[in-house]
Amino acid sequence: SGRGLFAAGFRRGDIVLNTFSYHLTPGGFILDSGARAIGCVVIPAGPGNTEQQLEVIEHLRPTAYAGTPDFLKILLDAAEQKGRNAGSIRKAVVSGAAFPPSLQAEIKRRGVDAYQIYATADLGCIAYESPAREGLIVNEDVLLEIVRPGTGEPVPDGEVGEIVVTSFDHDHPWIRLALGDLSAIMPGTSPCGRTNVRIRGWLGRADQTTKVKGMFVRPEQLAEIGKRHPEVGRLRLVVTREGEADAMALLAECAQPSDALAQRLAESLRAVTKLGGRVELVAPSSLPNDGKVIEDRRALT
Amino acid sequence: SGRGLFAAGFRRGDIVLNTFSYHLTPGGFILDSGARAIGCVVIPAGPGNTEQQLEVIEHLRPTAYAGTPDFLKILLDAAEQKGRNAGSIRKAVVSGAAFPPSLQAEIKRRGVDAYQIYATADLGCIAYESPAREGLIVNEDVLLEIVRPGTGEPVPDGEVGEIVVTSFDHDHPWIRLALGDLSAIMPGTSPCGRTNVRIRGWLGRADQTTKVKGMFVRPEQLAEIGKRHPEVGRLRLVVTREGEADAMALLAECAQPSDALAQRLAESLRAVTKLGGRVELVAPSSLPNDGKVIEDRRALT
Repeated sequence: SGRGLFAAGFRRGDIVLNTFSYHLTPGGFILDSGARAIGCVVIPAGPGNTEQQLEVIEHLRPTAYAGTPDFLKILLDAAEQKGRNAGSIRKAVVSGAAFPPSLQAEIKRRGVDAYQIYATADLGCIAYESPAREGLIVNEDVLLEIVRPGTGEPVPDGEVGEIVVTSFDHDHPWIRLALGDLSAIMPGTSPCGRTNVRIRGWLGRADQTTKVKGMFVRPEQLAEIGKRHPEVGRLRLVVTREGEADAMALLAECAQPSDALAQRLAESLRAVTKLGGRVELVAPSSLPNDGKVIEDRRALT
Repeated sequence: SGRGLFAAGFRRGDIVLNTFSYHLTPGGFILDSGARAIGCVVIPAGPGNTEQQLEVIEHLRPTAYAGTPDFLKILLDAAEQKGRNAGSIRKAVVSGAAFPPSLQAEIKRRGVDAYQIYATADLGCIAYESPAREGLIVNEDVLLEIVRPGTGEPVPDGEVGEIVVTSFDHDHPWIRLALGDLSAIMPGTSPCGRTNVRIRGWLGRADQTTKVKGMFVRPEQLAEIGKRHPEVGRLRLVVTREGEADAMALLAECAQPSDALAQRLAESLRAVTKLGGRVELVAPSSLPNDGKVIEDRRALT
C-alpha cells in the first residue's frame, strides 16, 4: 500500500498512527508494511481505546493517521471534547467504510487532509485517491477489470459492474478474483499526472442474490439466460410485491423486439429460475447504469 | 523470544495462535517474530473475541498457544462449554501474569503443555522455562543481575533482589535496566542441559516506596543510610501503626552491635527520611530473604 500512502502525502519520517486492526485480519499489517516501505515510522495502535490513543497522540505526536474514516472522527471529536491535542495529525489514509462528502468536509475543516484507499484482505491496496481527487487510481501491482455481476465478462468502459482483480505476486497469485464490490472505469487519466486506469469509488455490493417465492435467484442465472439469447443486450430482473405475492419482471435490452422473442425469454426465465415472470423488451442502453442485474424493489419492513 | 519458544517445544511447522496484543504494546510482535524466527506460522489473534478465536482454532487448527495463562483457560473453558474443538493446541508459552501451580495443573489436565517465559516490553524474552521445570533459564542475549532494591549493588547468589538486565543489541542497547521485579539466582544448572544462569520465577515487585506520616520513603533512602554505615549489613525498614499514628523501625544486621551505632543509625534515618524511628540491631543473615528493604505492615483497610 506504499504507493497509495505516498499519493496521500505520506513521506519518509512521518509517524503514522495505524488504527487498522492487527488481530485476526491483515488490515493492520497491510498498512504497516506499506508505510514502513516508504520510510514512515508506524505506531501499531489498532482500533478502540480512545483515551489511550489520545495519550499516545500527545506523547508521540503522529503526523498521519491510517484507519476508518469513522474512527478518525471519533478521535478528533474526543480530543476536542476533552481538550486534548491531536493537532499533530495533518494527513490521513482512510479505508474500510464509506467516506461521504459531508464527513470529508468535516475532517478537512479539522485540518486533516484525508484520502481514500480501496484495499482488500487478499490483495492489499487495489486503488487509491490522489490530490486530484478524481476517482481512485488503480495500483500498478494489479490488473483490474469491471465485469457484469454473475459473469466473468468485462463490461464496456464506464459501465458499472463488479470489480475483478488479478495479481501476479509470485508467492500468492490471484487470477481474476471477484471482489463483490461494484465500481466503473473512468475515462481519461488523472490531472495529477499518474497514468494508470482510474475507477469511481465504491458503488455498492455486487452480490444481488435474493429470494423470490422462497427460491434463490442469482446473478449467474441471469447470465445464463443472456447466454441463451445472444440477440438481447443487458438484462435486469426486477422483483416486486403484487398483491401479497412476489413477482418478477425480466427487462431485456434489444434492438429488434418481437413477441416471439419475449415468449422465448419467458420460457428461459422459467427454465433457469423455476419461477414465472413477465418479460419487457426495452431499447438498447435504456436500463440504468448501476451494475444491477437483479433489482429488488420489495419493501423489507 | 525464539529460544524460549524452542525450549517450550515449539518447532518449525507449528501453527501458533498468538493472543498477545499487537496494539499499543510490543507483546504481540515479540512473540510473533520469535515464533517466525524458528519457523513457526503465526496467527496474529490478539486477546479477546473468544467466539471468533474458537472459529479460528477449528478452521486453522493451531498446534500452539502464546498468551496469558488466564486467556488460555478462558479459551479452553469456552470450547468445553460450547462443544467446540480446541484439541489441536498441545503446547503453550504463557507470560504476563501469575501461573500458579493450581492453574498449571488444570491446563496440563486439558492436554496442553504450558511453559512460562519472563519477557519485558523493552527487551523481549529475559528468561524461560524448559522441560526440567526448575526455575527460568536466562536468555543468552541478556546479562542479568539481581541487585538490592534501590541500589545498583548485586546481592549474593540466592538472595532475593531486583532484576537488572543489560542487552548489547546494537540498535537498541540497554545498560543495567532495572525492571522493578523481584527474583533470585538459583544455584547449579538445569538438568535439561542448558547451562546458563537460572532464576526463580517472579517474586513480587521491587518498588517498595511508601508514605509514612505523609512523606515518601524510598528504597534509595535505605541504600543511602547503608552507605553511611559500612559496619552494618542488610537494612530493613518496618512500617507499622502504633496507636493512631505511623511508626518506623529500622532493622540493621551487624556483627558488633552497640548503643552508639544504634544512635548514629537513628540520626542518619532522620537526616535522610526527615522522619524519626526506632533502630534495632539484629544478627547477620537474620532478616528474611525476600528482597524487601521497606516492609509495610500497616493494614490498608
